[in-house]
Amino acid sequence: MEVFERSFEDSLAIFKQLLQHKKMTRFRNEYLALHTYDQAKLFNHFEAQERALVYQYLSPDEIAEIFDDMENENFDLSKEYFLEMESMYAATVLAKMYADNAVDVLNHIEDRDKIAIFLHLMPKEAASELSQLMNYIEDSAGSIMTTELVMVQENFTVKEAYDYIKTCAVDAETIYYAYVVDEDRILKGVISLRDLILKEDLTPIKEIENTRVISVQVSDDKLEVAKMVRDYNLLALPVVGFDHKLLGIITVDDVLDVMQEEADSDYSGLAAVDVNETHKSPLSASKSRLPWLITLLFLGMGTASLISQFEGLISIAPVLSIFVTLITGTAGNAGTQSLAVAVRKLTNRSEDDPFFESFGFEMLTGVITGIVMGLTIALVAGIWKQNLLLGVIIGVAMACAIVVANIAGALIPKVMLKFGFDPAVASGPFISTLSDLTSVFIYFTIASLFLSYL
Amino acid sequence: MEVFERSFEDSLAIFKQLLQHKKMTRFRNEYLALHTYDQAKLFNHFEAQERALVYQYLSPDEIAEIFDDMENENFDLSKEYFLEMESMYAATVLAKMYADNAVDVLNHIEDRDKIAIFLHLMPKEAASELSQLMNYIEDSAGSIMTTELVMVQENFTVKEAYDYIKTCAVDAETIYYAYVVDEDRILKGVISLRDLILKEDLTPIKEIENTRVISVQVSDDKLEVAKMVRDYNLLALPVVGFDHKLLGIITVDDVLDVMQEEADSDYSGLAAVDVNETHKSPLSASKSRLPWLITLLFLGMGTASLISQFEGLISIAPVLSIFVTLITGTAGNAGTQSLAVAVRKLTNRSEDDPFFESFGFEMLTGVITGIVMGLTIALVAGIWKQNLLLGVIIGVAMACAIVVANIAGALIPKVMLKFGFDPAVASGPFISTLSDLTSVFIYFTIASLFLSYL
Repeated sequence: MEVFERSFEDSLAIFKQLLQHKKMTRFRNEYLALHTYDQAKLFNHFEAQERALVYQYLSPDEIAEIFDDMENENFDLSKEYFLEMESMYAATVLAKMYADNAVDVLNHIEDRDKIAIFLHLMPKEAASELSQLMNYIEDSAGSIMTTELVMVQENFTVKEAYDYIKTCAVDAETIYYAYVVDEDRILKGVISLRDLILKEDLTPIKEIENTRVISVQVSDDKLEVAKMVRDYNLLALPVVGFDHKLLGIITVDDVLDVMQEEADSDYSGLAAVDVNETHKSPLSASKSRLPWLITLLFLGMGTASLISQFEGLISIAPVLSIFVTLITGTAGNAGTQSLAVAVRKLTNRSEDDPFFESFGFEMLTGVITGIVMGLTIALVAGIWKQNLLLGVIIGVAMACAIVVANIAGALIPKVMLKFGFDPAVASGPFISTLSDLTSVFIYFTIASLFLSYL
Repeated sequence: MEVFERSFEDSLAIFKQLLQHKKMTRFRNEYLALHTYDQAKLFNHFEAQERALVYQYLSPDEIAEIFDDMENENFDLSKEYFLEMESMYAATVLAKMYADNAVDVLNHIEDRDKIAIFLHLMPKEAASELSQLMNYIEDSAGSIMTTELVMVQENFTVKEAYDYIKTCAVDAETIYYAYVVDEDRILKGVISLRDLILKEDLTPIKEIENTRVISVQVSDDKLEVAKMVRDYNLLALPVVGFDHKLLGIITVDDVLDVMQEEADSDYSGLAAVDVNETHKSPLSASKSRLPWLITLLFLGMGTASLISQFEGLISIAPVLSIFVTLITGTAGNAGTQSLAVAVRKLTNRSEDDPFFESFGFEMLTGVITGIVMGLTIALVAGIWKQNLLLGVIIGVAMACAIVVANIAGALIPKVMLKFGFDPAVASGPFISTLSDLTSVFIYFTIASLFLSYL
């Protein structure tokens, strides 16, 4: 995997030196010869005064290309770059970038005056395009689409379409699909460059276009868009407005980023932590993790005060306390399993299962796993403590606790979705802490019933 | 999102009826007019006797196109399809499919004789290609690459290359990149179709090829490949052998599948369950979940027997038992956070942090969160139970337990990776169960020290 001919650290050191010694020509030659991704990666490692030099050495066009290749996750970072540039330079870079990326940057700038200045300083056409795109709500198809696409008319011939595509090749984000529209810009069909080069020059587009074109609405969720691109193996997907007019396209590279984001956010939810945390210090990492831990601690206090109600029971039969963590832990694990299955089903699948089907399925799964686990622990505990009744109490309690945890795990994500929340936020720690409460209640209630026989 | 003009259920019912009434022509017309993904989706819902008819109505070419569009996750399923077809038909379909997909199917067939029959019955060229690809180890770049690519020689002109690409347009998996090789098939450069159509006909390829071509080795991990495609925004990535000869390409649609698989597997690990389980019955779901639960139960037995050692302590001070689940739960949550951050760092980032840097980082984060959580619970418990010493014991125990859990969470994935395991298998339930043990030990040890003052 030879990307840099030297190691990244060596390259970085060399470029930093070239900047320090103001070797503009050598810097330009060597830096611009790299892949833009590597240029971006190096750029992110330059210090402020080094970047100030880069803005002098490279044209807005060249900088725009680098920024287009930066990862989405870094837009928060690249916002700073625009604020440190001269405003005219920044505005020109933004105008040269792909519209979806430029909008992403602008959306991260809090200072509304600064945004207005950038929009004033750039060419009118670019400004109106960007301000229009900025209206689309977060996480919608509109928010990740680009307007730089290839549109052809139905009355074009293959040759005309091909020649037209040639003129778009520099600006369009992809030229491998051309979208066929009528005079009102209503999406009629699609034709791939691959199909185009196989056909005779004079064939009318109308004859060869694929009219079963798959499109999404501008307000559709970006995750739905990602699923369609994945399922239909597309390189780009057209976005239409409510009037069926073609507004833009979403390309596969943006879909890769959406999938990555979604996977990270699901994973973060399950662990109650932002896994993309790029904290500079343990202090800031702690700051972001503590709210979760404290919330869960207070939820857990519910369990503690419940146990406290049974303090009398424990002092009579302290042997009961040995199995508390085992029962709560096992039910928590079972609940996490059922929760994880439910969340990923909601994220990955295009259709949802009927509500009560998955409810019944998880309940039955809970009953089966509950019986097996209950029997196992009843035997183990009964033999270990030489007390069959104790074994039975623990076994029954564990079985019931597992059933309840399984049902809760399956239902909570669905309920959250129904109320408009991201189901992935229903975290594993959350379900374990909740199921601690029910498990303890079940366990001690059953134990109290049999106390006289213990 | 208009894909089917009717709902999926309606379409399915109609096609099932067409098959039942043996309406071959209407079936062909309507079915083949759909996007292949939708054909595949419908096909997966046909019963065995309906599929038998489809194999008569559709040519191996048409079936091959459908199967090429099926999701990777379904290959286990589609294996069955090949076993129910006539062998000659199956072999022809396999030969017509993209090589990477055909290999995926063959790799799922356990009956080695059946594989040999398929390979015998198909054209020699296809058979030798497939049997070669089958040698690549699982999860390597070789296992997901396809050999249907466009290769051009350095001495071609733009016009020659363009005409050659045209002849490949039907078979190649992508024609949007052409790879430049010398007479020994050594990879020299790459040229995109986009660049090609912008250049003059007589320009030599040598002049316009991009020689800084990014490639991977055939044995590289497919996850590394996915990261490169994502980072460099590529539509395809060339795969070379150890002798630098060009062997194949990996296209972005396969990368989407790899990313999906990886996200699912990380998520599954964290929850100790296979989130892609497509079990038909609660019984089979239970069967796949129980091994995890039972393993964790026996790990949890360690904690139970440790508590059992302290039974005397509990019978003297039963108030201690109230806070056991709170301390183990909180430490488990903190450990899960630190584990999740560590796992996703290993999965997402191209470079790994130095071992001891992340160790120190997580330890310090543990110390800070531990102190805050310890103080909080010390106050809450001390006031609630009107016992300052009890509060201090619980607070100190929780702080220590969190530090230990944080360190374990950060280290376990790294240690697993060092020993060649997938770090994602280090699940949340696993770390919580482990940290239960250390937390209980810390808590009761501290409590015993202060017993006389309680």
